Amino acid sequence: MSAKPVSRYPVPDIAGLPQDMRERILAVPEKAGFVPNVFLALAHRPAEWRAFFAYHDALMEKEGGLTKAEREMIVVATSGANQCQYCVVAHGAILRIRAKNPLVADQVAVNYREADITPRQKAMLDFAMKVSRHSEEIAEADFETLRGQGFSDDDIWDIAAISALFALSNRMANFTGMRPNEEFYLMGRTGR
Amino acid sequence: MSAKPVSRYPVPDIAGLPQDMRERILAVPEKAGFVPNVFLALAHRPAEWRAFFAYHDALMEKEGGLTKAEREMIVVATSGANQCQYCVVAHGAILRIRAKNPLVADQVAVNYREADITPRQKAMLDFAMKVSRHSEEIAEADFETLRGQGFSDDDIWDIAAISALFALSNRMANFTGMRPNEEFYLMGRTGR
Amino acid sequence: MSAKPVSRYPVPDIAGLPQDMRERILAVPEKAGFVPNVFLALAHRPAEWRAFFAYHDALMEKEGGLTKAEREMIVVATSGANQCQYCVVAHGAILRIRAKNPLVADQVAVNYREADITPRQKAMLDFAMKVSRHSEEIAEADFETLRGQGFSDDDIWDIAAISALFALSNRMANFTGMRPNEEFYLMGRTGR
Amino acid sequence: MSAKPVSRYPVPDIAGLPQDMRERILAVPEKAGFVPNVFLALAHRPAEWRAFFAYHDALMEKEGGLTKAEREMIVVATSGANQCQYCVVAHGAILRIRAKNPLVADQVAVNYREADITPRQKAMLDFAMKVSRHSEEIAEADFETLRGQGFSDDDIWDIAAISALFALSNRMANFTGMRPNEEFYLMGRTGR
Amino acid sequence: MSAKPVSRYPVPDIAGLPQDMRERILAVPEKAGFVPNVFLALAHRPAEWRAFFAYHDALMEKEGGLTKAEREMIVVATSGANQCQYCVVAHGAILRIRAKNPLVADQVAVNYREADITPRQKAMLDFAMKVSRHSEEIAEADFETLRGQGFSDDDIWDIAAISALFALSNRMANFTGMRPNEEFYLMGRTGR
Amino acid sequence: MSAKPVSRYPVPDIAGLPQDMRERILAVPEKAGFVPNVFLALAHRPAEWRAFFAYHDALMEKEGGLTKAEREMIVVATSGANQCQYCVVAHGAILRIRAKNPLVADQVAVNYREADITPRQKAMLDFAMKVSRHSEEIAEADFETLRGQGFSDDDIWDIAAISALFALSNRMANFTGMRPNEEFYLMGRTGR
Repeated sequence: MSAKPVSRYPVPDIAGLPQDMRERILAVPEKAGFVPNVFLALAHRPAEWRAFFAYHDALMEKEGGLTKAEREMIVVATSGANQCQYCVVAHGAILRIRAKNPLVADQVAVNYREADITPRQKAMLDFAMKVSRHSEEIAEADFETLRGQGFSDDDIWDIAAISALFALSNRMANFTGMRPNEEFYLMGRTGR
Repeated sequence: MSAKPVSRYPVPDIAGLPQDMRERILAVPEKAGFVPNVFLALAHRPAEWRAFFAYHDALMEKEGGLTKAEREMIVVATSGANQCQYCVVAHGAILRIRAKNPLVADQVAVNYREADITPRQKAMLDFAMKVSRHSEEIAEADFETLRGQGFSDDDIWDIAAISALFALSNRMANFTGMRPNEEFYLMGRTGR
Repeated sequence: MSAKPVSRYPVPDIAGLPQDMRERILAVPEKAGFVPNVFLALAHRPAEWRAFFAYHDALMEKEGGLTKAEREMIVVATSGANQCQYCVVAHGAILRIRAKNPLVADQVAVNYREADITPRQKAMLDFAMKVSRHSEEIAEADFETLRGQGFSDDDIWDIAAISALFALSNRMANFTGMRPNEEFYLMGRTGR
Repeated sequence: MSAKPVSRYPVPDIAGLPQDMRERILAVPEKAGFVPNVFLALAHRPAEWRAFFAYHDALMEKEGGLTKAEREMIVVATSGANQCQYCVVAHGAILRIRAKNPLVADQVAVNYREADITPRQKAMLDFAMKVSRHSEEIAEADFETLRGQGFSDDDIWDIAAISALFALSNRMANFTGMRPNEEFYLMGRTGR
Repeated sequence: MSAKPVSRYPVPDIAGLPQDMRERILAVPEKAGFVPNVFLALAHRPAEWRAFFAYHDALMEKEGGLTKAEREMIVVATSGANQCQYCVVAHGAILRIRAKNPLVADQVAVNYREADITPRQKAMLDFAMKVSRHSEEIAEADFETLRGQGFSDDDIWDIAAISALFALSNRMANFTGMRPNEEFYLMGRTGR
Repeated sequence: MSAKPVSRYPVPDIAGLPQDMRERILAVPEKAGFVPNVFLALAHRPAEWRAFFAYHDALMEKEGGLTKAEREMIVVATSGANQCQYCVVAHGAILRIRAKNPLVADQVAVNYREADITPRQKAMLDFAMKVSRHSEEIAEADFETLRGQGFSDDDIWDIAAISALFALSNRMANFTGMRPNEEFYLMGRTGR
């Protein structure tokens, strides 16, 4: 079985992209060593690409009450529920690195209730999953539960917004058949 | 029963917003006569606000094989399935105006299969709903069906991306308890 | 797209109906100004028609602890969940008129949890939805919750029976492809 | 464990009921040998009782393309899916008698797809289940399938209407906790 | 409609089976009077047959805090939810006999919440159903609930393991189209 | 967050187990280098342990039309759907080794439809998932589809039986909170 392509849609040459996109994309491999396919697959539509990464950076790179590892946990748990192969594999890798934990990503992807996480993180993921799967049922009681775990209202917005952004991202990845880079599968697993 | 507030979160004063946001927001009432609450509720987070509206405009205001009314149909149908009150009421109004049809929005919101739409639009909404609810099952056969209705691959991306963006939007509106402006309820109903 | 017919089945001439049906049907326009299509679509089967409207009147026109607007709320909320276009549009109109509220029907149809209703009405709709969607799970605790909101056991029967009757009605409307009269869409929206 | 009562609500004395109800109820034991509890449980509300049994008789006792056993199959299959104990037990008994088959009711209640029924009856139950569980998805193709099995449009209405009536009946039985008479459990099983 | 065969797969002659299987199978009719079809249908694969009945006997014939009737209740309730005709009919018969109660099996098969069982048995079946349908959500709170009803941790394992074994059994019976022996339908119903 | 234990239940000392269990368990590390926790967690119940591993070996170690890697694919895909952390992590490792493919297990666990597998394997997993999630809907057409992909009836039994056995296994692992050994996470990923 030969491997599937990066996307069901044509993937542009990095060299031919507008400068802002090219610069942003080429900055990634300095840290990661490769260009994640999401940068290429979504570049089929530059305006949407810019909006997506602006949204992504506003939520995933910001300071706040959630650690960067916790933000990735939200991505991995909700992407698992949405059966998004790209997001589980790619953000699983980032979660392993940010949490300095080679096990937690696979645990969270399959069943976060059984993962090696704190009760506070469990409450965070319960809410992220509710946003992802049954947002119509969100009620004041959910906020009370999260505040009781020490989350500020700003933290709660972060949880919800990350879950909501990846509701979009999961659907675009599933729609384009976005292929995870092979490098992600092993990243952060060997602890070195 | 007193009316609920615009959002569970504080809503900023328009006057105090950064200039780019203020200009964009104040341009809306020139056409609509009022500021839709989504502009206020999401302004709690300026960076996310900018990304959201950049994404929105890239998909909803562009040229292409889908009419503007058809784009709104996608929003209304998927928002109905996600039980998003703000999006059904606000985009239902825009759909009525863009389609010059006072009936179609309520029909599509409840059950698009029974709406007064063309078979091509029915196929468009079948796919938008699959993206919204079961994106993990998208397969080549879905593309074939849409091409058979005359949609280009670029049109198909538009359908999927609008459905995906409102997967995000529905969740943020449900999370913030975003209240539809009262003006939306009657817009486009009297046809005059 | 031309409009769909009133029903997938032949619709009888009012003039040719038995006198009791004709009288009942012709009395409606005196108040509403038109004959709602449900009277015509179901008249394909006179015996069932008589039973349906007898059941309907026994529940919707009776005195009791529920206001007439609250009875319509039950219809609109459960019909929204069952994706019944006819019942949401027609009973949405009646709800607007009976509640003297141009907004509440659209709110309840999409997501009653976010509607401008009282906590007592929210509890009423929670139970109506349980009857409609998961009646096998009804337990004593549900009765206790409702009694705690001031509902009598007779009120609780009304809630359940209205939800149950429209479980039937929604299915017949979906089956016949029953078309809402155009007049319903605007009724009760302009406050006059 | 003592047995549960006939209904969560008070059950009237037959002697004290209005004459039309009393006559109808007392006529049943002449054939069956006992009064089925549905007559008592629903008699808590005489107007609804009359409408229910008028509806019931219009569908279950009429002539037409469906045999009486086939009508009961529809009841048993959909009531099984709705987890209605009263309807499965009581109509299971009637199905055994009308089909002169001691096995078919238990088969249909658990999984009609594996029951000893004809392909035509299988198609009938497929449609009855769609009406019961996903009526919003009914489409022309369903009618074509049924016509292909020899059902007339009038037969199709019968299938849908019986499924819809028992959508109501199942909810009322689950709501009242309606208890099946003990006599039903053995009826029609011994072939005499 | 002629009756379906015992299995979609060939059923071996008892005489030709290995001695251990033959002895085990022939011992059954001494008590029951006939060979239940599960022994024949699964004998298509002797190694799996041996493992299955070893597992079955380890759970269903052991001593412990659950009565044999309670073990059968777990089978009947979960098999009803999984729509397994063979298991509901065959184990319904065994439940009637072991509980010396001609009614409880049909009640539990359709809706155990409304069956004539004790609150302790209701809690047992709530947990068995969670294992069967949502085992990913099992949490410490479930154990606390069961201990509060007097179940030991060993009893809780029994509940879970019986539910899990019949998750396997229901799928094999549905896959093979396993036909219940006619004798089961009447067993335990006449109180002798 | 400290790691969770191997099981919610006590785990026996290998030294104290009956000789047949001890021998079987101690044979595993000769190949794998460690004792998988499933051997310990289930050893809480020796009779069930013996039946489980007899069943397992009968299906997973046999010759036949399915490769050993394909058998593991079935386990990983269905265990992902059942959110069984132990089975996804442990059998994901075995799948990587047996398929000599470091990527396929993560792909299949999240969404087998998007995995690098053949159309024949896709059909195999479609059926395995149907057995796992909707076995009540299995019909002759499913067999025809599989035969069209070159599967013999014996292969089809293998697919169904593996899916059914892991329906049991997933539930026991979720029930006991079975913890995957840390060694599994990295096995088969580095290609050595």
